[in-house]
Amino acid sequence: MQVTILGGGGFLGQRVAKALAASGQIGGRAISGMTLFDLAPPRPVEAAFTVRCVGGDITALPEGVIGQETGVVFHLAAVVSAAAEADYELGRRVNVRGTDAVIDACRALKVPPRVVFTSSIASFSGGQDAVLADDARQMPANSYGAQKAAAELFLNDASRRGFLDAVCLRLPTVIVRPGRPNKAASSFFSGIVREPLLGLETDLPVPDDFKVWIGSPRAATGWLVQAAGLETAPMGLNRSLNLPGLSVTVGEILAALETVRPNASGLVRRVADPVIAEIVGGWPANFAAERAVKLGFNTHEPLVDVISAFVADDLDATKADRGMA
Amino acid sequence: MQVTILGGGGFLGQRVAKALAASGQIGGRAISGMTLFDLAPPRPVEAAFTVRCVGGDITALPEGVIGQETGVVFHLAAVVSAAAEADYELGRRVNVRGTDAVIDACRALKVPPRVVFTSSIASFSGGQDAVLADDARQMPANSYGAQKAAAELFLNDASRRGFLDAVCLRLPTVIVRPGRPNKAASSFFSGIVREPLLGLETDLPVPDDFKVWIGSPRAATGWLVQAAGLETAPMGLNRSLNLPGLSVTVGEILAALETVRPNASGLVRRVADPVIAEIVGGWPANFAAERAVKLGFNTHEPLVDVISAFVADDLDATKADRGMA
Repeated sequence: MQVTILGGGGFLGQRVAKALAASGQIGGRAISGMTLFDLAPPRPVEAAFTVRCVGGDITALPEGVIGQETGVVFHLAAVVSAAAEADYELGRRVNVRGTDAVIDACRALKVPPRVVFTSSIASFSGGQDAVLADDARQMPANSYGAQKAAAELFLNDASRRGFLDAVCLRLPTVIVRPGRPNKAASSFFSGIVREPLLGLETDLPVPDDFKVWIGSPRAATGWLVQAAGLETAPMGLNRSLNLPGLSVTVGEILAALETVRPNASGLVRRVADPVIAEIVGGWPANFAAERAVKLGFNTHEPLVDVISAFVADDLDATKADRGMA
Repeated sequence: MQVTILGGGGFLGQRVAKALAASGQIGGRAISGMTLFDLAPPRPVEAAFTVRCVGGDITALPEGVIGQETGVVFHLAAVVSAAAEADYELGRRVNVRGTDAVIDACRALKVPPRVVFTSSIASFSGGQDAVLADDARQMPANSYGAQKAAAELFLNDASRRGFLDAVCLRLPTVIVRPGRPNKAASSFFSGIVREPLLGLETDLPVPDDFKVWIGSPRAATGWLVQAAGLETAPMGLNRSLNLPGLSVTVGEILAALETVRPNASGLVRRVADPVIAEIVGGWPANFAAERAVKLGFNTHEPLVDVISAFVADDLDATKADRGMA
């Protein structure tokens, strides 16, 4: 079986590629080759099977990126929230037309492949005090979320029609991200852990009691791989899942940081930013993700393990990337 | 103010055009001209203002169909359920790309126009026994419904961004439609009234206790015109509305027909059709449309009035169209 990872150069795409290279299989089916696709050809991963790295535009997928032998497609390619808000056409082109191009490529195959799609909790609104049930409707307050919710509708419909066999995962805010601070409104949730661990000061734009729904890189990668091997018959028409993330406060994140690296949280400066607080304040901070648990998705590790895992998995590489090694 | 009706050649488009020609205004603003747009140039309506009739492709809207002076756009153009199911690309092109083209045209205007969009209860599933609340999520079981639900997401987002000011009406099954039986799965709901009134036999593919959520042509036209003049500030992010239709059984429709035209229902033959029963059986047959009522949308006239209105408004024209005058 061939596997394709669209967005294979990204943070989660690379982790999924490494996880599959390590296991060599999905749901008991051996992987014979993997294609990593992104705007620029992604960094290859070491594997016992052939890994192809291809660059291009997702709305005009190059021949063979999703070929006849493809059994699983991870569709992680996206224009993220801040960028989709800043450039409406770009978001629509990549997040909507790109998903249509994936549907069309899958539809041309003899056997409908599994498509694992990353949707987002940004497709919901509801705010700090809501606890969203599995049947909560999506009422996005940003173009990224609207485009992701629409892409879910198209993938659900394509599954019903037998063009493909989709599982759409509405990922929580993923922390701790390696690399550098960026312009995403949610960047600080990773920054308040990563930057102090690098010995750097960083700004916290919301109060300590601010709540957020998180998933760790390890949990998110695990869920994506689980979705690739999932038995979808029990899902019926609804191929979208809220995931068993963690609802935590900023204060709890900082306390976990203190447990792993005493005094590190002293580098966090309280600098209120009402603009950022309003954007992230619209995202729901808690979900009752019972359906995903019933379907067998792993529950989340404790918060302190999320911080420890960042130190073990990513701290050295982040230092090297930033010339601090 | 200029008004544009996309799908202006259709059944509801022509009724809305006539209603606006009669009133000459929307929400107190005088209409200075109207453009009717459809695949072929629509039949003009008589009005005190200029009426332009233009034919073309909605994904490539001709210059001026939505011009600078446009205050209200009725976006009724669609590929309907059976056709969108039979031809996936056609449905996607008209129902999704067409809506994107409307958004782009509105975005180019100096003042964001009101857009009144016809979505559908086919964007829901739930079946015969569900009573859907206003916050029920859309879980379509057909491509038409998926495309309509996605179009709502895009119009909600475009409203939030200030590109336009949308009201999306999820129309019930509209009965009694004039004209001829067609291939829509829901065609028989009109057929069991219209055909006997023409003195013709007709088939009923579902049991007499089968439930359906209906809206009359008069009610649907009224709601569309009300939506054009609605104060949208109280709607917030959610520009979509379930409407106060009627939940009726087929038996109740036939009893109302008997009241208006005794013995007519004897022309209805019970011919079970499991394929049709399965399609229409997936559509919810009841909604608690409290939000629309609170916003001032008219409640529905009694069922017997729906039949009488068809006799008054449409029976002679239908006879003439079908060479029976």
